[in-house]
Amino acid sequence: MAALAWVNGGPATTLASEDRGLLYGDGLFETIAIRQGQPCLWRAHLERLAAGAARLGIPMPPIAQWRAETAAMLAAAGVPASATLKLVLTRGTGARGYAPPAAPCPTRLLLLYPDGPQRPWLRSWEQDGVLVRHCRTRLGINPSLAGLKHLNRLEQVLARAEWPPPGEAPVATRVAEGLMLDAWGNLVCGTMTNLFLVDADGGVRTSDLAHCGVAGTVRDLVLRCADQLGMPVQCCRLRPSALGRARGAFLTNALIGLWPVRRIDDLNLDPQALPPVLAARIRQACFTPEPDW
Amino acid sequence: MAALAWVNGGPATTLASEDRGLLYGDGLFETIAIRQGQPCLWRAHLERLAAGAARLGIPMPPIAQWRAETAAMLAAAGVPASATLKLVLTRGTGARGYAPPAAPCPTRLLLLYPDGPQRPWLRSWEQDGVLVRHCRTRLGINPSLAGLKHLNRLEQVLARAEWPPPGEAPVATRVAEGLMLDAWGNLVCGTMTNLFLVDADGGVRTSDLAHCGVAGTVRDLVLRCADQLGMPVQCCRLRPSALGRARGAFLTNALIGLWPVRRIDDLNLDPQALPPVLAARIRQACFTPEPDW
Repeated sequence: MAALAWVNGGPATTLASEDRGLLYGDGLFETIAIRQGQPCLWRAHLERLAAGAARLGIPMPPIAQWRAETAAMLAAAGVPASATLKLVLTRGTGARGYAPPAAPCPTRLLLLYPDGPQRPWLRSWEQDGVLVRHCRTRLGINPSLAGLKHLNRLEQVLARAEWPPPGEAPVATRVAEGLMLDAWGNLVCGTMTNLFLVDADGGVRTSDLAHCGVAGTVRDLVLRCADQLGMPVQCCRLRPSALGRARGAFLTNALIGLWPVRRIDDLNLDPQALPPVLAARIRQACFTPEPDW
Repeated sequence: MAALAWVNGGPATTLASEDRGLLYGDGLFETIAIRQGQPCLWRAHLERLAAGAARLGIPMPPIAQWRAETAAMLAAAGVPASATLKLVLTRGTGARGYAPPAAPCPTRLLLLYPDGPQRPWLRSWEQDGVLVRHCRTRLGINPSLAGLKHLNRLEQVLARAEWPPPGEAPVATRVAEGLMLDAWGNLVCGTMTNLFLVDADGGVRTSDLAHCGVAGTVRDLVLRCADQLGMPVQCCRLRPSALGRARGAFLTNALIGLWPVRRIDDLNLDPQALPPVLAARIRQACFTPEPDW
């Protein structure tokens, strides 16, 4: 459970049962790593939230307001060395029915989760790579929602329910993530991560997310870093057969940073296929708070 | 706003901000017409809720519990002659992340909305038919969610936002509903209704909902009634071109009952194409409370 919860500027563990976030999933969220009492990739998260709000037509509260509330909450939590912050923005309440209210009064929800004791296998997952499986649950094709980190996440819930929760399998055979295809059979992403393939020529490829999937903050970071390092970078349609031709693969999100993949079901991959300099840069950028956030 | 709200058996206008219904849309709902202080189509609604819960792996609270709470709430509301009841079932709270809790403790939310004063144009909509438009927003293809009345409703929200809310257009040009295609271009349903076409031979057709859409309680009723009346009935893939060949069309849900369509954008249809006996049976079944609910 969250250590602290704030709603619209003050501590509150509940929110209106008629909130459109609950009734329709009419909202967006961000999941942010906290290190040394400060949020990481703050600017990228808030820019994505603002862009998503613009696409859905939800008024975006000023970033200064999110910042002030986040700072106050982190202070109230004793400036945690390591934690997870979730920001949720919804279209607020309104009359019954799908029609959005003409002048929505959006809801801001902040949830702060303590990071438990460091799990020892995570270090080996970073160094030696993770086990990954394919999910049966597909992602729906919907360009109007593609890329958004919105609150309609039943596909991910069903996909994640296909294998046991963390802790129920021995570490050596523990599945870290599941890969999802879209309804057309294209390879898109993991349930909670973006997927990159490392090609034989050392270039990296990821889904263009034209029809579904979430445009991750760390995905953006990888695309920019790889480009700066002179690596070929491609956002494109990925067929599942591309896995068999890849030298390696890795997964990204704002909480894990970057995980190399060592096996996908029966397919072995080289967890060292990714240039160490790229992995190091990504991890540093993911977990170094921005001083001027 | 709702006149009354109950959460897990008692009056409460708020619910846990960490409820998975809010964070992921991890739940289902039913919208039920109340007449003479009693719910209509109660059995059909609760059976659909139970079937949806089974598909999502959410434990279904006993129907007797829903019934007792609904009865108590209706009594508290003074046994309203006409109202709308919304039931929401979510997977409850849990640890952060998509993985469903091993032993979920589901949330039951009941919202009772008063019906406003009878809107005079509704009678003419029932008799003379409604204006309908096509929506640009498409429905995502997802067989694992198809048919379910789940809480992931952003597609409907975006589609409904494509035309002005009720009351903002003159009655004569007021659009009652928007039709939605799926990502493959098949015609599926309205934002809040199921769509039926009336063929030249007097038969009725509706989408098979194999890939998306909600399997409405009144849709089921129409299929059964039409069959009893000896009308040809088909659940199939509908192409948009089928509209041009149809004699008529109608829309159904548990709150409107049945609306004939008189125009879809520039296409005029015969609002009397549907046999009056079928329309009458549907409306009676929709708005007559079951004595033994």
